Amino acid sequence: MIKAGIIGATGYAGSELVRLLLGHKQVQIVWYGSRSYIDQKFSSVYGNMFKLVEDLCKGDQIEELADEADVIFTATPQGFLAGVLTEDILKKCKVVDLSADYRIRDVAVYEKWYGIEHKSPQLIQQAVYGLCELYREDVKKTDLVANPGCYTTCSILSAYPAVKAGLIDPSTLIVDAKSGTSGAGRGAKVQNLFCEVNENIKAYGVATHRHTPEIEQELSVAAGKDVVINFTPHLVPMNRGILVTAYANLIPDADGKLPTYDDVRKVYEDCYGKEYFIRLLDKGVCPETKWVEGSNFVDIGFVIDERTGRLIMMGALDNVVKGAAGQAVQNMNLMFGLDEAEGLRLVPSFP
Amino acid sequence: MIKAGIIGATGYAGSELVRLLLGHKQVQIVWYGSRSYIDQKFSSVYGNMFKLVEDLCKGDQIEELADEADVIFTATPQGFLAGVLTEDILKKCKVVDLSADYRIRDVAVYEKWYGIEHKSPQLIQQAVYGLCELYREDVKKTDLVANPGCYTTCSILSAYPAVKAGLIDPSTLIVDAKSGTSGAGRGAKVQNLFCEVNENIKAYGVATHRHTPEIEQELSVAAGKDVVINFTPHLVPMNRGILVTAYANLIPDADGKLPTYDDVRKVYEDCYGKEYFIRLLDKGVCPETKWVEGSNFVDIGFVIDERTGRLIMMGALDNVVKGAAGQAVQNMNLMFGLDEAEGLRLVPSFP
Amino acid sequence: MIKAGIIGATGYAGSELVRLLLGHKQVQIVWYGSRSYIDQKFSSVYGNMFKLVEDLCKGDQIEELADEADVIFTATPQGFLAGVLTEDILKKCKVVDLSADYRIRDVAVYEKWYGIEHKSPQLIQQAVYGLCELYREDVKKTDLVANPGCYTTCSILSAYPAVKAGLIDPSTLIVDAKSGTSGAGRGAKVQNLFCEVNENIKAYGVATHRHTPEIEQELSVAAGKDVVINFTPHLVPMNRGILVTAYANLIPDADGKLPTYDDVRKVYEDCYGKEYFIRLLDKGVCPETKWVEGSNFVDIGFVIDERTGRLIMMGALDNVVKGAAGQAVQNMNLMFGLDEAEGLRLVPSFP
Amino acid sequence: MIKAGIIGATGYAGSELVRLLLGHKQVQIVWYGSRSYIDQKFSSVYGNMFKLVEDLCKGDQIEELADEADVIFTATPQGFLAGVLTEDILKKCKVVDLSADYRIRDVAVYEKWYGIEHKSPQLIQQAVYGLCELYREDVKKTDLVANPGCYTTCSILSAYPAVKAGLIDPSTLIVDAKSGTSGAGRGAKVQNLFCEVNENIKAYGVATHRHTPEIEQELSVAAGKDVVINFTPHLVPMNRGILVTAYANLIPDADGKLPTYDDVRKVYEDCYGKEYFIRLLDKGVCPETKWVEGSNFVDIGFVIDERTGRLIMMGALDNVVKGAAGQAVQNMNLMFGLDEAEGLRLVPSFP
Repeated sequence: MIKAGIIGATGYAGSELVRLLLGHKQVQIVWYGSRSYIDQKFSSVYGNMFKLVEDLCKGDQIEELADEADVIFTATPQGFLAGVLTEDILKKCKVVDLSADYRIRDVAVYEKWYGIEHKSPQLIQQAVYGLCELYREDVKKTDLVANPGCYTTCSILSAYPAVKAGLIDPSTLIVDAKSGTSGAGRGAKVQNLFCEVNENIKAYGVATHRHTPEIEQELSVAAGKDVVINFTPHLVPMNRGILVTAYANLIPDADGKLPTYDDVRKVYEDCYGKEYFIRLLDKGVCPETKWVEGSNFVDIGFVIDERTGRLIMMGALDNVVKGAAGQAVQNMNLMFGLDEAEGLRLVPSFP
Repeated sequence: MIKAGIIGATGYAGSELVRLLLGHKQVQIVWYGSRSYIDQKFSSVYGNMFKLVEDLCKGDQIEELADEADVIFTATPQGFLAGVLTEDILKKCKVVDLSADYRIRDVAVYEKWYGIEHKSPQLIQQAVYGLCELYREDVKKTDLVANPGCYTTCSILSAYPAVKAGLIDPSTLIVDAKSGTSGAGRGAKVQNLFCEVNENIKAYGVATHRHTPEIEQELSVAAGKDVVINFTPHLVPMNRGILVTAYANLIPDADGKLPTYDDVRKVYEDCYGKEYFIRLLDKGVCPETKWVEGSNFVDIGFVIDERTGRLIMMGALDNVVKGAAGQAVQNMNLMFGLDEAEGLRLVPSFP
Repeated sequence: MIKAGIIGATGYAGSELVRLLLGHKQVQIVWYGSRSYIDQKFSSVYGNMFKLVEDLCKGDQIEELADEADVIFTATPQGFLAGVLTEDILKKCKVVDLSADYRIRDVAVYEKWYGIEHKSPQLIQQAVYGLCELYREDVKKTDLVANPGCYTTCSILSAYPAVKAGLIDPSTLIVDAKSGTSGAGRGAKVQNLFCEVNENIKAYGVATHRHTPEIEQELSVAAGKDVVINFTPHLVPMNRGILVTAYANLIPDADGKLPTYDDVRKVYEDCYGKEYFIRLLDKGVCPETKWVEGSNFVDIGFVIDERTGRLIMMGALDNVVKGAAGQAVQNMNLMFGLDEAEGLRLVPSFP
Repeated sequence: MIKAGIIGATGYAGSELVRLLLGHKQVQIVWYGSRSYIDQKFSSVYGNMFKLVEDLCKGDQIEELADEADVIFTATPQGFLAGVLTEDILKKCKVVDLSADYRIRDVAVYEKWYGIEHKSPQLIQQAVYGLCELYREDVKKTDLVANPGCYTTCSILSAYPAVKAGLIDPSTLIVDAKSGTSGAGRGAKVQNLFCEVNENIKAYGVATHRHTPEIEQELSVAAGKDVVINFTPHLVPMNRGILVTAYANLIPDADGKLPTYDDVRKVYEDCYGKEYFIRLLDKGVCPETKWVEGSNFVDIGFVIDERTGRLIMMGALDNVVKGAAGQAVQNMNLMFGLDEAEGLRLVPSFP
């Protein structure tokens, strides 16, 4: 049995980790870390866990935890892990970080977008960006995974094959994303009250959202050159789910002919055809967040608009699963040499 | 492997059966029956099943199905199964009926409340009412289970121990129930459109809802005498979940003293203490439908109102799981001698 | 023009007062009181008011306000108004209090249920309970109105005629109420976050909710004797609306015959037939909260259950309008001798 | 009093017309046309109108109606009005058409996108496109208004000033739109059931939605050249509201300098500064659909993304009001020489 500890277990991503790990045959949770609820029963904070989890919440003493656990998941505020993580801890156990601390390879970019000083930049290089479908082999070998953001996972996976294959001009890429409200976390803020979110939709963080540099970093790798994009998140009155609608100009061939549906299809199938967690939808089908709810799937579809010469790429995932806890478990599975889908063969729930 | 066929697979209860059976290690689905979608891919009707189910929908030829399957689930309109079921079919395979056809032991009561003639009353006696926690041993021996209604399961389980133990006067019992909209089915009706249900709550079927005689039948058994109750369902703007709030007068002892919280608690614990799927909540905790979403749990709590001398009993379940497909699988497990919870150890999903 | 001041203008009830008074031809708002947002633009707190309200928020200096205003609305926490109201203020201007401070005539009952000391019990006697349809003439003459609670208005109006006419036994009365989430206020609490309320329903404050003694007080007046009831509120995932479903035993006549539908109908029509804001629904129609949304209407319907001998009374209103701000304006209209419906002829919004 | 008739009164746009016209002092509704509900009480179809409308529904005999009414509103399926409208009718009364029949000036474009033959192309020229803020003077003089679509109104108004002033390159314009579900109408379709829409978001009609040519037509006028755009609608789990997020490349000046926030602001203020129904939001404020709910306002904001050199334009409106019935009333006011805002000074409802 792998012994797992969670720091930040009472946030939405943390509690979803609990849900998933309870169904994972080779994992035992040994530490429910939650600074706000120390010594309270975890199931008093999450009533769904009543009778399933008897443990009390503990603090965030990561060094102590590193002695007890084989793997630590951190679902903590930005800067926390960077402030406490050491080489010593990484020698004792593996770490999957759900915060952004080790996602951005350029520490200056991190510090600019997050507005905080990075306390352990020396560890960034050894962290692997845990978008499993892109960095699978690296994840298998590392002790420190930077688990990608929810918007990021959906945005990158939707556009990656087209960028990589040079089908589209990445400088024209516009990502319009829509998220359920669990992405905003469990903090008690007026703006996230039921009455403020319900029957409402709005954009936020326009041109300034912190997931932007993360998307740009990975699509730059795919493009082989620096990519700068527009990324606009929207808050949708639903609990779970992210939908990405991305637009970019198709690049014509030497004869001025645009790639066809079949051309694009082939590129996506070559890239994702063997991936269990990526479902490439049939022609004419647009992804819906409800179809992936509760699962680790990403559904991807695309449309060619011949009138404008653009490719419209669409992706849907469950922000708490593939966008957070599910991908973290997928990374853990890879790090420990397990079946990548262990504990993650979740059938989406409908309705 | 148990071969299972589903007639009515494209309704909400039927598709939930698919979800649950896909996760059941000892079952293989061999028949996705759906008269409306014959020869169409099941996953084109339920996009969540894309890549998980490749089968086409078939018709409702139950005799043919009986030759192929070990168990048949019928999630069909009232009267369908009663019209086609025969002794011959029951010799070939087991049947779990999610409709009401064999729930009511008195055929006259059935015909009065459902307004249709019962076409196979001779089979009613051999059917077992599949409220597993109450009829477990009978279910194990039968070939025909009448799977209880969603409101019914929640209402009966909430009040049963108190009625059985004589703590409350059953003639004063009032059951006020609230249901998510999946209970209304997937039929295309104006009244179930998003814009009609959203931001709205209403009672319906007041004093006339068909689950009333089913609740009365079982509580009469518990009481040892005929029980007549008020049952009022309400439609709530959410997908899943039933909450029952039930009220009844506590019966004082010879000295005029009412039962205490501890008295009632003991009765409920004696009754449900060993049940995996019934979670008796801690004192002061009221059930919430979100805490059981996606699972086969029933959460039960109660409050004594000393001012009025009444017991307020509350229960919550997921109407599509414990209220339909989950209980059907639980019954199947019992009928085949499997672990009762096989395929049903689902952790409730939150948020 | 009547000059109106609002203390507590940035709560949901307060901001609805603003919405209603902006549409009232004879009122000008002179004071937007909000301790939390002093010197901020009111429309920066409520974006719907952008361009419609240019004022900044002020404090809660009621004495200063009393010099400026003809009427003060207080939508403030329990105990605030009781702590600052004086005879002197009431000589200068009229007060409509949306808190509970002057609703309960027996100060001991108030102090028991609210758990605070009442600081101005001497003013309780001169306050009129502002349920306009019951106390219209008294409201016209008073300077201090205790505006009823939202649950209370709906519960009392649904049951009042039957209790008053002796059709039902008030000792058997059970009120099961369901409320939208705006009733919980705009405070930043985890339990009212979108993700906690959405896709969920629960009971709360079972047997202990503070609106209970207020309902009992008024139904006791109607019954001519002390009435003790069960009142159970539920939180529903919608913004606005309260639905009450109330149950009570019908009282048979000397021959043991129960009142008929027509008997009950006549009683309700005699009571409410001339009321503009009470809509007595047609036979067989159950109230729906969506049908009154945004309006000052209360929709009332009832069903006789001959099987149990009970009357089921149902009422629906918009908790922020007839349950708070709308009724407050209705009271103001009465106090100033205006048309009672001035500013309140709002057509419910659907969908 | 202006006598108004509505054909298609029982759709969502039609019933909103009823709501608005009931509050309009100079209009009397004389005809509630609804082929599906002939001879039924209008208020039995829309319970919110109980006691407010006593009329029965009538058919769609437009000639007969033209003799009775001063203005006819048609909220009917595409092709209906084009099939029945005549010069003779237009001599007798004014017509505001909420369908698309007379919106597209090029009949070939209409027939291509709508897939039906236009039966009265000779009337297209005399129809005025009723986007009041752009065609106010023409509307005042016409007898036939083609009331714009909901997505269209929001999309055009958001981008118009920037296109008109040459701030952006219209060939780069991408409009990503999100709509509440009332836009899908009241037809009983599975895809619009509560359980299908709730907790879900999806794109639909990608690259093929019929509002596309309407947006292009008007922005082409603004640009002074043919504009082809991407327009992608999304279905959001809420009743009302449209949010548009539009992206386009800013055009640098001769020195390669991009327009600044102030440059863009000035253009929008010059264009909309005097418009009552267009609220240009403060810098840094993004529109939210909840802030315009129930009102005729369009809220517009924008952000300059210096990193990509793009302008991000955002607009929000209530699709049933400014996107349909409200704008229809605004057009009627203009056609009859009334105050343009008569009956439309609606304060948005929150929450």
